[in-house]
Amino acid sequence: MFEAAEVGRKLSKSEFNAAEPELHHSLLSLQQKLRRSKHSLIVIVSGVEGAGKGEIVDRLNKWFDTRDVQTCAYWEESEEEKHRPRMWRFWRDMPMRGNISIMFGSWYTRPIVDAAFGKITEAELDQELGRIRDLERALTADGVIIVKLWFHLPKPEQKERLEQDAKISKFKKSPLLQDFSKHYDQFAKICERALRLTDGGATPWHIIEATNYHYRDFAAGKTIVSRLETVFGSDEQQPAKADPTADSVLDNIESQDSAKITVLDRVDLSQSLTDSEYSQRLSELQKQLHSLAWRMNTMKRNAVLLFEGWDAAGKGSALRRVTAAIDARLYRVIPIAAPTDEEKGHHYLWRFWRHIPRAGRFTMYDRSWYGRVLVERVEGFASADEWQRSYAEINSFEEQLLDHGIMLCKFWVHISKDEQLRRFKEREKDPRKQHKITDEDWRNREKWDAYKLAVNDMIAHTSTSRAPWTLVAGNDKKFARIQILETVAAQLEAMLSD
Amino acid sequence: MFEAAEVGRKLSKSEFNAAEPELHHSLLSLQQKLRRSKHSLIVIVSGVEGAGKGEIVDRLNKWFDTRDVQTCAYWEESEEEKHRPRMWRFWRDMPMRGNISIMFGSWYTRPIVDAAFGKITEAELDQELGRIRDLERALTADGVIIVKLWFHLPKPEQKERLEQDAKISKFKKSPLLQDFSKHYDQFAKICERALRLTDGGATPWHIIEATNYHYRDFAAGKTIVSRLETVFGSDEQQPAKADPTADSVLDNIESQDSAKITVLDRVDLSQSLTDSEYSQRLSELQKQLHSLAWRMNTMKRNAVLLFEGWDAAGKGSALRRVTAAIDARLYRVIPIAAPTDEEKGHHYLWRFWRHIPRAGRFTMYDRSWYGRVLVERVEGFASADEWQRSYAEINSFEEQLLDHGIMLCKFWVHISKDEQLRRFKEREKDPRKQHKITDEDWRNREKWDAYKLAVNDMIAHTSTSRAPWTLVAGNDKKFARIQILETVAAQLEAMLSD
Repeated sequence: MFEAAEVGRKLSKSEFNAAEPELHHSLLSLQQKLRRSKHSLIVIVSGVEGAGKGEIVDRLNKWFDTRDVQTCAYWEESEEEKHRPRMWRFWRDMPMRGNISIMFGSWYTRPIVDAAFGKITEAELDQELGRIRDLERALTADGVIIVKLWFHLPKPEQKERLEQDAKISKFKKSPLLQDFSKHYDQFAKICERALRLTDGGATPWHIIEATNYHYRDFAAGKTIVSRLETVFGSDEQQPAKADPTADSVLDNIESQDSAKITVLDRVDLSQSLTDSEYSQRLSELQKQLHSLAWRMNTMKRNAVLLFEGWDAAGKGSALRRVTAAIDARLYRVIPIAAPTDEEKGHHYLWRFWRHIPRAGRFTMYDRSWYGRVLVERVEGFASADEWQRSYAEINSFEEQLLDHGIMLCKFWVHISKDEQLRRFKEREKDPRKQHKITDEDWRNREKWDAYKLAVNDMIAHTSTSRAPWTLVAGNDKKFARIQILETVAAQLEAMLSD
Repeated sequence: MFEAAEVGRKLSKSEFNAAEPELHHSLLSLQQKLRRSKHSLIVIVSGVEGAGKGEIVDRLNKWFDTRDVQTCAYWEESEEEKHRPRMWRFWRDMPMRGNISIMFGSWYTRPIVDAAFGKITEAELDQELGRIRDLERALTADGVIIVKLWFHLPKPEQKERLEQDAKISKFKKSPLLQDFSKHYDQFAKICERALRLTDGGATPWHIIEATNYHYRDFAAGKTIVSRLETVFGSDEQQPAKADPTADSVLDNIESQDSAKITVLDRVDLSQSLTDSEYSQRLSELQKQLHSLAWRMNTMKRNAVLLFEGWDAAGKGSALRRVTAAIDARLYRVIPIAAPTDEEKGHHYLWRFWRHIPRAGRFTMYDRSWYGRVLVERVEGFASADEWQRSYAEINSFEEQLLDHGIMLCKFWVHISKDEQLRRFKEREKDPRKQHKITDEDWRNREKWDAYKLAVNDMIAHTSTSRAPWTLVAGNDKKFARIQILETVAAQLEAMLSD
């Protein structure tokens, strides 16, 4: 989830200064609408230590008209608070209709800390998270708008920042902070689980990269604006664009490319292999995979692979290099096209549940359930409500596969926009390939940027430590195929030696 | 929860035969509407062994046009099913839009059995139940209507039935059945937890008393009709009455009183005390309570008492007998009248959270959060959606109190309708009491039956083994006061000797 917030997004000071007045004005005018409404707003400011949560809270207080804003900081519990159930202090601070509470720390803090320090088990953490979901649902149903912001720093950045912080000022640092940074990985795992299990349709998490503080603050403000606009409409009285995911909030800052870097921009597309390197690795890996597949069959384990990627990225030919290695009795390829009538008659996950392999077998999905948050989102086939809630549905589905011991590999085959154009033209010229290029491909290409944001959101919401996405560098087909084969072989190896 | 299904509801054969044709017709005509809609229907038939679930499934198949009905019985998992995540087999059987699945056994079966036999911990059970909630929400959001029926038998009835069953036929009995009945109490506790944690607004549980099979089948059918009518409207095109709780489905069978018995009818109102018995017990109990309250204070524990009941039932005077015993520094009485502006500005539970006592203290609520499912429901101050989801919100709230170690006593002070009339008239005559009787009291009285059903539903959804309701026999005020004092003293004693 966090890799989408480690891409180096930034805004320069001058970019920030140019865009800030409009953002500030939007926040104020939306606050006016909130004031006259039956809604209230809770902004949860959370994330890793060192991300500058205090500064963000200051900034929000500067932006909002503070007459009806309360800032609530939750750290250790007072005597009074310890005497009551742990939600009591949060209930005390619930904003009244028309008002805003900015929560610095929240109901997430204690369960996460307790789980990270081993005070509660994973099942107990889940139980607590279940209660939090119930609380948030009860509040949302009652008209409370909850914006949950998670500020993320990559590990080296956090370390550096905390060290620097220690040099500058001794008393700014809380005593627990050293512990937190030491246990970065453990914390990251717990936080990811907490975020994933509470990433609901009505209360999604917005993970914001906090390395650059202009970007950080701007993205926080824009996220709030975007969310309030879905409720109150924007200033120009346009119908609200219900797209409150963190990574779409910068749609309308056309110029600031550095603020719109996505995980895909971080893929090194220059990677390639020579023909001889390729042939040798291909032959080695296919042999390895062949015997791993039989071992998997003997051990009665099962595996699911899924392939997503740009049109003409080479998904199909890469998939064939995998199947070529495996005995045909052991796998099944499920190509996902438009749903059948029967499939349309069910929940969208039904068609994927059908084909889960039995023990000892593979199912490979050529395109997958992620269509819901890619093509269906971009083309408007699914409503905003539908595709937003599907992140949680997908995570739950995949978790059930993993809990059952099924291996899951998720590939996004990435190519550059130029490379796609080259391949499209090549296909048009080659009579044997003409059938592979349609008007639809050209239309999809026009929506490249929208798809790119959708992919980034998808990674942010569904790439987890247990079910990570593999971003495949696809400009060189040979490199891509080897990368995929290596990933599958390594994951199988790991599963079977468990 | 189950006490509302141990009141002896029944229909005679002739009553059943008279009412059945109309029910059958409603089911068929609603099925027609379902067929043409984007919805599908899942009926979950579950409950204790011996309740006749097989017969109910047969009956439903007789009532529905079976062309688009599939009956799915879930017992042990096949080899194929064991190879996949446990939800796989349920996904396979999901009904298509327009269709109906009757599930005999369901996704609840395995977690309940595993928990009852100690294979999974309570936290793991909760985790599973969380997943079930997510599944049901995902389906509901997609247009699936889920009707969850739980058929209950009181313990002696179940025992007798199973013994009889064993005599009649050896092969009708499953081998596990003997085990189930031996562990009735353990099962009841786990089932209650499972039902309570999955008793959501859109997918409430309907607990149906299965002792009399005419009532059992009729109530099952009526529940389904009532639920479908909230979606499709009734035959007469009236606006749907969104009141799909089990105990309201018999509203329109005016004549059959035996089918509408509620828990309140089971309260023995003839119980009374003589003046001298009363004085002696009162003095003893108040002394005991006085010292228990100080002990509680020393031990830093806290307690919440709440009093609900009919107008003129004597809540106030009983409450005063409790407070008279306790040092005034240790308790606070919160009378609940119409909410203040500030309270209206928050979620309805906010005003009750505020007054949770600190360690060592009591809070006594004179009327309570149950107003949501009593007066607000009956008077229409809360929408059906609002009061229905509040059962789950209330259970979650109370569970948080209990988990924190707070004692909770819930009293419904019951009197007969005649006794109320007598007291109203007495109040009107007595100049010192005239202020206590208003037009509103007379108006409420006219809705006696609606309140009675609401109380029964309330008990069904919120009386749990950890937070049971005490139904107080209030026709004799002396008896009622002693019953309340005894209950408080006993619960305090139990808590403090824990």
